[in-house]
Amino acid sequence: MSSVLHFPSTPASISTADALALAEPLARQLADTAIARDQAGGHAAAQRELIRDSGLLALTVPTALGGLGASWPTFYRVLRRLAQADSALAHVFGFHHLQLASVQLYGTAEQQRRLLGDTLRHRWFWGNALNPLDRRLRAVDTPQGYRLDGVKSFASGSVGADMLTFSAWHDGAQAALIGVLRADTPGVAVQTDWDAFGQKQTDSGTVAFDAVALALADVLQPPGRVPTPRATLRQQIAQLILVHLYVGIAQGALQAGLGFTRDDARPWFQSGVAAAVDDPYVQHRWGDLWLQVRPAEVLADAATIALQQALDRGEALTFDERGEVAIAVAEAKVLAHRAALSVSSQLFELAGARATSGRYGLDRFWRNARVHTLHDPVDYKLRDLGRHALTGAWPEPTPYS
Amino acid sequence: MSSVLHFPSTPASISTADALALAEPLARQLADTAIARDQAGGHAAAQRELIRDSGLLALTVPTALGGLGASWPTFYRVLRRLAQADSALAHVFGFHHLQLASVQLYGTAEQQRRLLGDTLRHRWFWGNALNPLDRRLRAVDTPQGYRLDGVKSFASGSVGADMLTFSAWHDGAQAALIGVLRADTPGVAVQTDWDAFGQKQTDSGTVAFDAVALALADVLQPPGRVPTPRATLRQQIAQLILVHLYVGIAQGALQAGLGFTRDDARPWFQSGVAAAVDDPYVQHRWGDLWLQVRPAEVLADAATIALQQALDRGEALTFDERGEVAIAVAEAKVLAHRAALSVSSQLFELAGARATSGRYGLDRFWRNARVHTLHDPVDYKLRDLGRHALTGAWPEPTPYS
Amino acid sequence: MSSVLHFPSTPASISTADALALAEPLARQLADTAIARDQAGGHAAAQRELIRDSGLLALTVPTALGGLGASWPTFYRVLRRLAQADSALAHVFGFHHLQLASVQLYGTAEQQRRLLGDTLRHRWFWGNALNPLDRRLRAVDTPQGYRLDGVKSFASGSVGADMLTFSAWHDGAQAALIGVLRADTPGVAVQTDWDAFGQKQTDSGTVAFDAVALALADVLQPPGRVPTPRATLRQQIAQLILVHLYVGIAQGALQAGLGFTRDDARPWFQSGVAAAVDDPYVQHRWGDLWLQVRPAEVLADAATIALQQALDRGEALTFDERGEVAIAVAEAKVLAHRAALSVSSQLFELAGARATSGRYGLDRFWRNARVHTLHDPVDYKLRDLGRHALTGAWPEPTPYS
Amino acid sequence: MSSVLHFPSTPASISTADALALAEPLARQLADTAIARDQAGGHAAAQRELIRDSGLLALTVPTALGGLGASWPTFYRVLRRLAQADSALAHVFGFHHLQLASVQLYGTAEQQRRLLGDTLRHRWFWGNALNPLDRRLRAVDTPQGYRLDGVKSFASGSVGADMLTFSAWHDGAQAALIGVLRADTPGVAVQTDWDAFGQKQTDSGTVAFDAVALALADVLQPPGRVPTPRATLRQQIAQLILVHLYVGIAQGALQAGLGFTRDDARPWFQSGVAAAVDDPYVQHRWGDLWLQVRPAEVLADAATIALQQALDRGEALTFDERGEVAIAVAEAKVLAHRAALSVSSQLFELAGARATSGRYGLDRFWRNARVHTLHDPVDYKLRDLGRHALTGAWPEPTPYS
Repeated sequence: MSSVLHFPSTPASISTADALALAEPLARQLADTAIARDQAGGHAAAQRELIRDSGLLALTVPTALGGLGASWPTFYRVLRRLAQADSALAHVFGFHHLQLASVQLYGTAEQQRRLLGDTLRHRWFWGNALNPLDRRLRAVDTPQGYRLDGVKSFASGSVGADMLTFSAWHDGAQAALIGVLRADTPGVAVQTDWDAFGQKQTDSGTVAFDAVALALADVLQPPGRVPTPRATLRQQIAQLILVHLYVGIAQGALQAGLGFTRDDARPWFQSGVAAAVDDPYVQHRWGDLWLQVRPAEVLADAATIALQQALDRGEALTFDERGEVAIAVAEAKVLAHRAALSVSSQLFELAGARATSGRYGLDRFWRNARVHTLHDPVDYKLRDLGRHALTGAWPEPTPYS
Repeated sequence: MSSVLHFPSTPASISTADALALAEPLARQLADTAIARDQAGGHAAAQRELIRDSGLLALTVPTALGGLGASWPTFYRVLRRLAQADSALAHVFGFHHLQLASVQLYGTAEQQRRLLGDTLRHRWFWGNALNPLDRRLRAVDTPQGYRLDGVKSFASGSVGADMLTFSAWHDGAQAALIGVLRADTPGVAVQTDWDAFGQKQTDSGTVAFDAVALALADVLQPPGRVPTPRATLRQQIAQLILVHLYVGIAQGALQAGLGFTRDDARPWFQSGVAAAVDDPYVQHRWGDLWLQVRPAEVLADAATIALQQALDRGEALTFDERGEVAIAVAEAKVLAHRAALSVSSQLFELAGARATSGRYGLDRFWRNARVHTLHDPVDYKLRDLGRHALTGAWPEPTPYS
Repeated sequence: MSSVLHFPSTPASISTADALALAEPLARQLADTAIARDQAGGHAAAQRELIRDSGLLALTVPTALGGLGASWPTFYRVLRRLAQADSALAHVFGFHHLQLASVQLYGTAEQQRRLLGDTLRHRWFWGNALNPLDRRLRAVDTPQGYRLDGVKSFASGSVGADMLTFSAWHDGAQAALIGVLRADTPGVAVQTDWDAFGQKQTDSGTVAFDAVALALADVLQPPGRVPTPRATLRQQIAQLILVHLYVGIAQGALQAGLGFTRDDARPWFQSGVAAAVDDPYVQHRWGDLWLQVRPAEVLADAATIALQQALDRGEALTFDERGEVAIAVAEAKVLAHRAALSVSSQLFELAGARATSGRYGLDRFWRNARVHTLHDPVDYKLRDLGRHALTGAWPEPTPYS
Repeated sequence: MSSVLHFPSTPASISTADALALAEPLARQLADTAIARDQAGGHAAAQRELIRDSGLLALTVPTALGGLGASWPTFYRVLRRLAQADSALAHVFGFHHLQLASVQLYGTAEQQRRLLGDTLRHRWFWGNALNPLDRRLRAVDTPQGYRLDGVKSFASGSVGADMLTFSAWHDGAQAALIGVLRADTPGVAVQTDWDAFGQKQTDSGTVAFDAVALALADVLQPPGRVPTPRATLRQQIAQLILVHLYVGIAQGALQAGLGFTRDDARPWFQSGVAAAVDDPYVQHRWGDLWLQVRPAEVLADAATIALQQALDRGEALTFDERGEVAIAVAEAKVLAHRAALSVSSQLFELAGARATSGRYGLDRFWRNARVHTLHDPVDYKLRDLGRHALTGAWPEPTPYS
């Protein structure tokens, strides 16, 4: 059962402005090498160290435990800033904090104190091996806890992680448990098999477990325990990480495209104007793209506030209140999904053929958006929204909603 | 020069909740006859009396003068509620308050005290004859003020108005003056020539002026006086009235369409489901329509807050700050325009063929949206947004931006 | 079993040019009163006589029986021309020929000779009471044939028809029969209860049957007989009538909107051009609308040719060949549906606010398109297309595909 | 002056079926290495030899000169087939034939005989250095002809070409000449500076000319000669090459995406179906994408026929007839542009996250479409179409229309 330590709003909690000030130099450093690293792919060990050195791994750890105690709105603003620069590393950063949130939502007071404390002490980077549709990892009872065998694929941030959160199927309970493990635990091996054409450096490997021992103290949720409405906010935190990543990509693409149009695009010879920025069609299309990004930003912020308010309700949170958050997040998700894809593809119509030169790397926005927006199908978000409008039904609490 | 009386936030100002409570029975009364009156067209004298009796004509009059002193966010929420029920009468209501705003933005302290006070005393309904692109009304100097001759068309709310705000072209100044007149002033005649297929009861007549005398005391803005950035917020107030009307139409159409789908639509025989609300395509499309209305609502609210903040700055408001309001309003305007048209047309795909029966009058949402959204071209709003994104340029203060 | 008389291509068959020459004065006559009749609604008795007098009721009757023997491409071109002028009367005209096609596809040689011959002799106008999802009309066996009791709603062209084609549910066979009846048969009564906001004069009444005797000679398809692939082309003929009606509406709206923009629209004051036709946004949007209508036209023509070729195959037509026609028709249907709705709504953005005056009646295009496109859901056509692309499956032969 | 040799339709002209039979093994060979070569970029020397060995470099050379004498519809079908497999090499192939067309449209009978004859004899591959907006290449008069100095960038197919067609600005005439040159002419140097993120192997280099001598015999069009309407069909041939390339990319992406959805995609866990192809949203979206590709195909074919008919008119072709071709090509161009971008991006929504693995290379369709569709702005095509619809004006004959 989770404790009262959760997300206390002490006076010492970091402000959004201060958190963004910490993030800004990091974002610039990531941006400096983003094009080159997008081309190279693989593991960005040096950039992970930059993140670690920034102190932002402690961003969502409560101040009572020594962390920065950022609110979720603050966290997401930082995430978005990083995503403008490098949406792959931003994902790794975001999923680190998702694991910390899992500890806070599912863990006991003792677990929170120990795991979050150690996170600060050892500057741990957390990775995710929770992929809930992949049931190949099995847990069987042992006297001391469980024995784990099998694999989890698409494990974001697992390559290079110090700690892993994972789910494992338990045949007896016909349900999954959720646990944590040190990545260097004997029997755990992370394979670097992620080779997508975008979001290349998300370190989304496959984690293999070979007779791994899991102590009871490291089980956040035993198999079969029904999570409270509040605990199921974890999925909304995860979905909002995606939302803000998409918004960040859209914003990054928008700024890059506007900049190229302003500084480098040539006016079309039939336009009758001296600069591309004065072409009526260029202005109109940028207006249209702007109007795809703005609502995504605004509704992402609204959903974030709804999430924070729900978290602030503590265990009193009802299923209906949880549903309202899920609707707000679904709204923002669809808009952000569309905005990221649309801007990252259409910017070239305005920036022109010269913008396709490989040295600008401007196609990375579309590739990153395209890969990342496939996490779960947007059509089912639209279904959830329409169903709610029609019948009032809330999205079912699933790993994706 | 306008005075410090403007929009004081006294403790006695009506709250949004209280204003909506006043508006709710009125909205229901308007809804009861909206379908029949849409078919009949013409002047809705009885409904204008309902509005008058509601006390809401005093909504935006400062409390210091005896009015309800509503903030602009409160006013627009009321407007939106009325527009859900009857967007034509809501327009008449909205433009009444636009004229009161004109008195506050352009008038002297004396004019404000006198004209707003008389508005309360005599329960005046104001109409608009400001159509700025129509220069057929001319003002020539006389010893006592001006003589007015000519016509103003598309004068919203002029039929049945007690007071009119108008603009008249002055050849000497090569600019327009803005004045107010009692509608029963000798020489003023209002023709009821509005025959559009939607927004039928907006009382948008043509006002003819035949040797009408205008006293200097009734001139709000002499010809040639350059308005302050604050005074040009009048156009933003006007544009936001349109925005909230469009949002109201979209919301009204959404609710009517959802209701019909829920209560009356039959499942398609190939759908494999027992109720239309369970059809995956019906759910998906309603989700999509919902996602057109929601951003329009949210950005309309954001623009409204931006407007209020700008008004609260008083005469200190800068041109740049005024530009920020104009951008926020333009964003909301395009989204609301699209949402109103899209929902009002597409709702029938989900509600089905039976929803086209004349007795439901569901086509009035599209007809109202279609007519009202032609006030000024949406493509130039998109241009303004794109140009701003590219170059930082603000929309020029024109009668439409 | 149908005979070899079907659709013979004799040298005397009317050419498309000649058929269009017959249709042109009729189309102009219909156009002259279309706006007034759209407002009035009800039964257009005089205009039905104009159609009758044009000789075009014989358009698809084979020359061997004394008709004009038009090919289906010729028929549809005529239909489209009429729909540009008046899509309600065009529907009545189209459904007359659909009933003649039913006689040819389902009837015996004797039935064809008798019924089509009498159609010419008596200048019969046929109506439709086949609405297949409405099973309230029941047929029970009698010594001479069947007795009919019940109602059929949404019976297009039934008001004022001389002859009716209808379907009736037979409990014994658990299937429907298809028959023909004189509209003045004792026990048959047509109620004029159609009150949609568009396509007002389609004479889509409700036909009540009270102990009506149906002779075996008037049964085109006995209950339980499985139709051949060729006979099920009736549905494709019906769907293509809708397609060409939608295309005709789109073309009519396009021409009306272009004409208004050219002749009456005023340039926007910020456009910097002297005529609306020179506004870059006006040009661009008309280009976009044009590009919605053109593909609909071209694919409608392609589907029509596919239909004719399938009919020319006679009873040798296979299920797969029939499926190809259904796919081509579905493609055209979705495009025509979208084009009609899009042009009829968007034309006002270009024509401007003055185009909403009731005297132009330009909103009738949207109202007609909106009502008529609800015949069957477009989303299931898209489903059929996608499923075919994925798996090769053909649309099931249903009353709508 | 061009001669009667042009495009004779002799009985020996190759049929579309025979040409496609020649193209099929080539297309398969290109497909085998397309993913690897897309990643590698650079010059595809071996694949150019495969094209050369196929005999298809002679495809559009008249049979009277020893070529295959394909009609333009046949040529474009071959081009489209190759573009499905590899749109970069298909572009090189298409632009080879564009240069041959230039010889036929601008060249004298002697030039045609000599240059096309040598093309067959020496199996020449032609490249393009005509980029008309780049005026940095200058021609000055010399006793024997002209001296050329300067550069032409974005010269498609120039790297590895045997022969080049080019334009050079002549200051005296204030107009450009068009000439041909062997790529190994002293003073000519081709730089391989093309580094776009798509269409990587189009060999679009920069051609530098250093005091190059151009003989009069190699001038196709002297500076200042006004081309006939027929000669300006060259631009329509060029634009249609782009159109068919876009269609080919769209078709390739469609087939690849459908195949992946069918064979490899997993059903979403909330879909309630056992296979992704049965998901209603998957079916619907594929239907929608199909409906973007089909009209592009059909209108591309219609434009191609219009082009052939215009060419068949010979020098009798009028400016109006040329305009009709330009409109048909513009229609197809916009549709193909949109289809290629839409399908290549959206296919992933249906194929799912696994389809983003680098080993499938499915992102190359979007990258190729994105780069290639920036040749000239689609918004100006829409403008041309709208303007024509409004006023009847034809697109001006420019290098792009």
